[in-house]
Amino acid sequence: MTTAKAYAAQSATSGMAPFSLERRQLRPDDVAIEIDYCGVCHTDIHFAENDWGFTIYPVVPGHEIIGHVARVGDKVTKFKEGDIVGVGCMVDSCHTCSACKSGLEQYCLEGMVATYNGQDRVDQSVTYGGYSDSIVVKEEFVLSIPEKLNAATAAPILCAGITTYSPLKHYGVKAGDKVGILGMGGLGHMGVKFAKALGAEVTIFTRSESKVAEAKKQGADHVIISTDPDQMAAAADSFDLLLDTIPVQHDLNPYLACLKYDGKHILVGLLQPVEPALQAGELVMKRRVLAGSLIGGIPETQEVLDFCAEHNISCDVEMLDIRHINEAYERMKKGDVKYRFVIDMATLKGR
Amino acid sequence: MTTAKAYAAQSATSGMAPFSLERRQLRPDDVAIEIDYCGVCHTDIHFAENDWGFTIYPVVPGHEIIGHVARVGDKVTKFKEGDIVGVGCMVDSCHTCSACKSGLEQYCLEGMVATYNGQDRVDQSVTYGGYSDSIVVKEEFVLSIPEKLNAATAAPILCAGITTYSPLKHYGVKAGDKVGILGMGGLGHMGVKFAKALGAEVTIFTRSESKVAEAKKQGADHVIISTDPDQMAAAADSFDLLLDTIPVQHDLNPYLACLKYDGKHILVGLLQPVEPALQAGELVMKRRVLAGSLIGGIPETQEVLDFCAEHNISCDVEMLDIRHINEAYERMKKGDVKYRFVIDMATLKGR
Repeated sequence: MTTAKAYAAQSATSGMAPFSLERRQLRPDDVAIEIDYCGVCHTDIHFAENDWGFTIYPVVPGHEIIGHVARVGDKVTKFKEGDIVGVGCMVDSCHTCSACKSGLEQYCLEGMVATYNGQDRVDQSVTYGGYSDSIVVKEEFVLSIPEKLNAATAAPILCAGITTYSPLKHYGVKAGDKVGILGMGGLGHMGVKFAKALGAEVTIFTRSESKVAEAKKQGADHVIISTDPDQMAAAADSFDLLLDTIPVQHDLNPYLACLKYDGKHILVGLLQPVEPALQAGELVMKRRVLAGSLIGGIPETQEVLDFCAEHNISCDVEMLDIRHINEAYERMKKGDVKYRFVIDMATLKGR
Repeated sequence: MTTAKAYAAQSATSGMAPFSLERRQLRPDDVAIEIDYCGVCHTDIHFAENDWGFTIYPVVPGHEIIGHVARVGDKVTKFKEGDIVGVGCMVDSCHTCSACKSGLEQYCLEGMVATYNGQDRVDQSVTYGGYSDSIVVKEEFVLSIPEKLNAATAAPILCAGITTYSPLKHYGVKAGDKVGILGMGGLGHMGVKFAKALGAEVTIFTRSESKVAEAKKQGADHVIISTDPDQMAAAADSFDLLLDTIPVQHDLNPYLACLKYDGKHILVGLLQPVEPALQAGELVMKRRVLAGSLIGGIPETQEVLDFCAEHNISCDVEMLDIRHINEAYERMKKGDVKYRFVIDMATLKGR
């Protein structure tokens, strides 16, 4: 066992504070990673504050992890000491079900093991995430970070990136497609970059006129103010795919009406329940699709990292001293970050 | 012009009564059809009683039409006098948009012309449907009825049949797939036959234990009582596709939970709004799809007719004297028909 420094929440109201934990002895297929950077995902806040009711305290959040290999187990073949590596939202799965065999470990029939608040399949211990100076992860769930990528700005690719890349690829977005991005936060701004890199004509939907300039700066070809009924009406029947990253309840019907026949509206946020109520006619009358998508599998996570290196895509980040994590959470709740906080773990190590 | 006998509703509360109308002179691409049979679709009731608020009175319903060719226009090449033919839910579209060019006239970008309560693209007259002794329809929207099919039991294929066949084909249902059929009325019982003929393992979901024997008789491999939480829980994550023909509001969430990852729940009814509210997590956590589907295009309608001939599939019908149409509507509202009324138009001609 190795003692690791970390930040944890002890209860829904405690806030984040320094914490010490033990990382396991290396199993033969394990990689020990010294963490250099960790992105801050809104999911971290949901777990820290027990918004979904199943947090196990203490919880150490963080699933956008970049670091370097410190040691490897006897049977590890893909990594060696010093390699720059990443860990995303999962650290294990059954490896044998149809989903795992298809590289879709996030849909593992036995349930994936989440990077934090999960349960280790070997010793049943609760997993601790990346707000820490080290982590031990099974080789198959460790990603290679291409040399061309900046380690700090690459961190959010491991959740915000793969979450938006996966549905665009799954639904075959290609050159000339008309793609709309709903929401312009950590996920949305990555969605714009991916859709553009895939050759799509990209429109950002935003509620506020004040975000138009920023949306254009992010690479959007067009901006639609979603609160303007005239602009929404003019967009009727015109989109092939809408990628919906809005993290709060919203009316899906006006967006569905913007899809062509056979158009797809893809949800990546857990806005449940869907209210106001969905109008079934918006789906039936044009054979439209409403679907969900959850992060992405390990092969596709490696693919998106390589894609980002190839297309010079990185996340827009604000570097964070871990001692300011509670303030960062408060700012995130107000949408006040462009577009992702990334913890510089030197601020933990030096504490 | 040719005078035709018909039945029409004069208002939302008038009920159906004898009516006389003029069918147009043949245009060069028109086919004049003497109607022998017309299926009675629940949509007919919605229009007769103005449930959707856009009925133009008088309305002559009927879009499951089988008859024989009486005369053809000068440029008609596909049909000749005496041919047994069918007309479904559409009688025209623009022919030039991407949807029409893909054989998906039901999604025509200029709007399809419905067989009744539609507006003719040439003279702007309101279209009258198949509760009539004759109809004049553009050649491209006339279907060939294979010799092997019984004309009376084939009529509902033109709406109930294509509506259920199209999504099964669109989503690639194949041998070994696990398919669930929700609802066992005119549409549902056709869905079972098609899914079985495509090689799927078919389960009927029904609310009532009393329908189990009938469901098995219809060819279902399994029956699940949807009101039994234990049966629903046992079915979790097990279906590739659910074909939802339930015509009234119902909770989609317990059904979505029955889908495998990547499973599809297809709505063909206009149950709007969707209440109780959809839980987005049911879609997101397993990349599930909720989609709609509207009848089918003309090429696919011909395909399903040929498929029915090849696989000896017909609709279970109760023949109806048109003078009893109002009683038939009342019985349909109570679900009291196995499974489709088909009007024998001899009862109109002989009046």
